[in-house]
Amino acid sequence: MAGHRTATLGREERTPLAAAREELLARLGTEQVIVDRQRLRTYECDGLAAYRVVPGLVVLAQDARDVETTVRVCAAHRVPFVARGSGTGLSGGALPHAEGVLVVMSQMRALREIDVENERAVVEPGVVNLQLTHATTPDGYYFAPDPSSQQVCSIGGNVAENSGGAHCLKYGFTTNHVTGVDLVTPGGDVVELGGKAPDAPGYDLLGAVVGSEGTLGVVTRVTVRLTRLPQDVRTVLAGFPDVDAAGAATSAIIGAGIIPAAIEMMDALAIEAAEEAVHCGYPDGAGAVLVIELDGPSADVEQELADVLRLCDESGAFETRLAADDLERALIWKGRKSAFAAVGRISPDYIVQDGVIPRTALSRVLRQIAELGEAGGCRVANVFHAGDGNLHPLVLFDGSVEGATERAEEVAGGILDLCISNGGSITGEHGVGADKARYMPRMFSDDDLDAMQAVRCAFDPDNISNPGKIFPTPRLCGERPGRHQGAHPLQEAGLGEVF
Amino acid sequence: MAGHRTATLGREERTPLAAAREELLARLGTEQVIVDRQRLRTYECDGLAAYRVVPGLVVLAQDARDVETTVRVCAAHRVPFVARGSGTGLSGGALPHAEGVLVVMSQMRALREIDVENERAVVEPGVVNLQLTHATTPDGYYFAPDPSSQQVCSIGGNVAENSGGAHCLKYGFTTNHVTGVDLVTPGGDVVELGGKAPDAPGYDLLGAVVGSEGTLGVVTRVTVRLTRLPQDVRTVLAGFPDVDAAGAATSAIIGAGIIPAAIEMMDALAIEAAEEAVHCGYPDGAGAVLVIELDGPSADVEQELADVLRLCDESGAFETRLAADDLERALIWKGRKSAFAAVGRISPDYIVQDGVIPRTALSRVLRQIAELGEAGGCRVANVFHAGDGNLHPLVLFDGSVEGATERAEEVAGGILDLCISNGGSITGEHGVGADKARYMPRMFSDDDLDAMQAVRCAFDPDNISNPGKIFPTPRLCGERPGRHQGAHPLQEAGLGEVF
Repeated sequence: MAGHRTATLGREERTPLAAAREELLARLGTEQVIVDRQRLRTYECDGLAAYRVVPGLVVLAQDARDVETTVRVCAAHRVPFVARGSGTGLSGGALPHAEGVLVVMSQMRALREIDVENERAVVEPGVVNLQLTHATTPDGYYFAPDPSSQQVCSIGGNVAENSGGAHCLKYGFTTNHVTGVDLVTPGGDVVELGGKAPDAPGYDLLGAVVGSEGTLGVVTRVTVRLTRLPQDVRTVLAGFPDVDAAGAATSAIIGAGIIPAAIEMMDALAIEAAEEAVHCGYPDGAGAVLVIELDGPSADVEQELADVLRLCDESGAFETRLAADDLERALIWKGRKSAFAAVGRISPDYIVQDGVIPRTALSRVLRQIAELGEAGGCRVANVFHAGDGNLHPLVLFDGSVEGATERAEEVAGGILDLCISNGGSITGEHGVGADKARYMPRMFSDDDLDAMQAVRCAFDPDNISNPGKIFPTPRLCGERPGRHQGAHPLQEAGLGEVF
Repeated sequence: MAGHRTATLGREERTPLAAAREELLARLGTEQVIVDRQRLRTYECDGLAAYRVVPGLVVLAQDARDVETTVRVCAAHRVPFVARGSGTGLSGGALPHAEGVLVVMSQMRALREIDVENERAVVEPGVVNLQLTHATTPDGYYFAPDPSSQQVCSIGGNVAENSGGAHCLKYGFTTNHVTGVDLVTPGGDVVELGGKAPDAPGYDLLGAVVGSEGTLGVVTRVTVRLTRLPQDVRTVLAGFPDVDAAGAATSAIIGAGIIPAAIEMMDALAIEAAEEAVHCGYPDGAGAVLVIELDGPSADVEQELADVLRLCDESGAFETRLAADDLERALIWKGRKSAFAAVGRISPDYIVQDGVIPRTALSRVLRQIAELGEAGGCRVANVFHAGDGNLHPLVLFDGSVEGATERAEEVAGGILDLCISNGGSITGEHGVGADKARYMPRMFSDDDLDAMQAVRCAFDPDNISNPGKIFPTPRLCGERPGRHQGAHPLQEAGLGEVF
C-alpha cells in the first residue's frame, strides 16, 4: 500500500507522507496543518470508537481551494486521504489512515445561499444538519433528513453516508434531498454534479457519489432541496402486548395507504432502558410501543389520525395516547431518542447494529433475533424504524466477562446474516465504513462488487480516497478480479494501529 | 471503430459483424435473428425519424439469457450493440449501428411479480408502461411515470431515458420509481443493482444506470415501486391573458406549498393548433392556459382546489373551469396531449425541443424564445410542464422553403443555449441520445464529461454499448482526455447511413 513506499528527494529518503507534509505546510501553513502527535490523537476515531487509528496528518480545510490543494498534494505523492465531518458516524467511515491525511471539513460552515423561491439551499459540507433547518424555519422550510445526531452531524457527512433518520419513511434519505454537489476527485479535479434543477442529462453520478462514503472524492459544496414545514403534526404513542401486534399495526397502517412521517418501534427491553433513563412514562407493561407521527395539511392529518388510532386498536393496542401539545410530543420522542444511550443503564456494554428487512418479515426476524441472542447468551433490545424495516438491535453484554465481547460480536454479525437471508440488507443508514466491509460479499456477488470496484477505479485508480472502507478486499485497479475474501479490511488495507 | 476491423477465421476474412452473425444464428436460430435487409429496415429509426441507420443485425430477445448470449457474442467480437424497447424515444437513443446488433426487447413482456404488500412489481423491460398500471389498478395501485407515449413505450425504455411525464412534478421521474434492475454489462456479466429495499449499501449504481441511455449495458429485469391510486383527482383549466400571468399563477401555487400532480401550460399558438385539431373548447382569446391537476385524499384536495382557484384569479385568470366528471377531464387533457401532433395542422414541419429552466425564469425565457424565433423567421409554439420548468417549444417551419430547415434547427439549438444560460439544462425528459450529444460540452466542463467518461470506460472499455450516444466525442478508454469537440457524434462514431 501507499504508506510502505518511499520517495527519494535529494539525498534524503522520505516517506510519501513526509513529502506531502512538507508541501502542505508550505502551502497551507501551521495553522491549518496539524502534525503534533497529541493533537492528532483527537481525531483517532469517529462515533464507532471500537476502531482507532491516529492519522498521519490533519488538514483543517477553510474552503474548497484548501481541499483541492490537499487532494492534489496527496495525489502527487499517492498518499491516502480521509475526509471527516463532525465525526459522528457509526460505521468507522471517517476512520483515519496512519500514513495518510485526514481532511477535517467542520470549519467549512458557510450557508452560501438560501433560495426559498426555488426551494434550494447551497451549503458548505461542514454545515451542521440542524443549522440549516434553523436558518430556513423563519421562511417556513426545513432540511428533511434527520439523523439522531442532527444537532452535531454535518451535511457533508450526511452526503457521504446517505444518512436517514426517523422521518425517512415519508421523506426519504439524504440522496432524495441533494440535487447537486461539487466534488474534488481523487485526482484533484473539481467536478460539478447536478445543480438546482432535477434530472440533469448524462449519467447521474450524483446518486453514485451520495453514499459512497468518501471513496470517490471529497465534496466541497452541496445543493439541497428545502422541504416546506408541514401545516400540522400529530404524534401518537401506542402500547401493544407484544412486537407481533405492533408489527401488524405497522403493516395495517401502510397497507391502508397512509405514509406517516415516522413509525418507530421499541420492544420491552428498550422500553425498560428508556424508562430508567428518562422516565418517559410509556404505557405500563407494554411488550412493544409504536411512536407514529403524521404530518401534512390539517384536514389530511385529522383523517389519517382517526384511521391510525382505529388500526392500532384493531391490531391489539391496549393504549393509544395522542400528544396534546409540543411538550407531550417532546416527551414521547425523548424516550425513543434516548434509547441507545439509555441501554447503558441496564448493561455495561452494548453493540448498536443496523440492518434492513422487508417490513412484512418483521415478526419472523424479531423471533429469529431473540433466538440468536438466547443461543449466544446475550439480551437484545430492539429499537427501530418499523415503517421501512430498518432495525437497530442493541446487543447487550458485559465486556469484563471473558469471551462475552466475542459472543456479542457473533450475535451482532448473525443478525446481519438474518437480514440478508430474509431479503434485506446489512445497513439501513449507518453505512458500511470500516466496520461492515467484510460483510459485503455475503450480500453481493463477485460481479456486483466488480461493478462497484470498476467505478471506484475509474475515480480513484491509486486507491487513495478513504481506502479500506466499503470494499472487502483492496484490489489494484486494472487487474482482473479474483474471489473476494472475507478478511478484515483493516488488516488488508495496511492501516496503522487498530485497537 | 469496431466496424472497420476484420477478423481472420480459417482462410476466410470476415468482419466482426459477420462473425457475430454466424455465432448468433447458431445459438439463437433464424426465428430470433433477423438478417434480411428488408426486415432490418423496419428498425432504422426510433421516434426521432430525422436520423436513420439500418442495423447490421437484429436479435429478438425472448428472455434474459438471450440478451446475455447476444452481449457476450458482441463483446467477444467487439461488435457494437444497441437495445431497443418500443422505439418511441425522441432523441435517437435507440438509433441502430450499421455494423452492429440491435437487441429488440419488446417481446420480453412478462409481469414477473406483483407484490402489493411491499408496493413493488418486478417486470421484464419490454412491458408497456400502461400495461403495468392496468395490471395493478384492481389492487388500488399504478405505475406513476407517465410519458405521453405511455400506451406504447416500454418500461425498459423509460429506465434507459429516465422518462418523465405530465405528473412528474409531484411524483418524480422514472429513477424515483425504480428500486432495482438486473443489468447485463457490456462485458456480458449479469449484475443485480438494488432490489426491493431502499438504500442498498455500496455505490448507488442503480441511479447511474437509470438514464444512462443504454451506454452501460442492457437491463433485463426491473423492480419498480407501485404508487397508491389517489382517493380523489380534480382537474382545473384556467385561461390567462398572457404567459406572464400564467407563469405568475404557477409560481403562486408552488409558493403556497401546494404540489399539484401536474401544472401544464400552453401558449396562444399551441392552443390554436389544439383547437383546430381536437376542438377541446379552451377559453376563447386566451394568451395562455394552465391545466392543473390535484390528487390525494379528498379533504386535502378540496382545500388545495379552493386555494388554486383563488391564486389563479389573483394572478389574472379571466376564466377557471373545473372538470365536472371524467369526460370533461379527458377533454381538457385531450387538448394538452394532442398539442404536438396538432401543430402539424398549422405548419407543414416542426421540431419538438426539450429543455429545462428554473421555474422562476419562465417569463424571461419565453420572451427570449419569442425573440429568437422572430429573428430566425420561425413561429414557436410552447407546450410545457410549467411546474418544473420543463419546456417543449415547437419550432414551426416549412421544409420546402430553401434554408427554412436550417433556420429552424438554429432556432431550436438557440433555445437550448437559452436554457443553459438561464441555469437550466438541455433535456428535461427526452434524453441526450444521438441528437444532443453535441450540446453536452455547452453544459458540462471537460472535467465533468471526463468523470462520466471514466464511468463509461469502467463499464464499457471497448465502447460497444450504444456508442455515439450521450458523449460528444468517442474516446479510447485509457487515453488521457483532450478537449471535447462539438462535432456531430454520428460522423465521429462512424455510424453508417445517416439521412
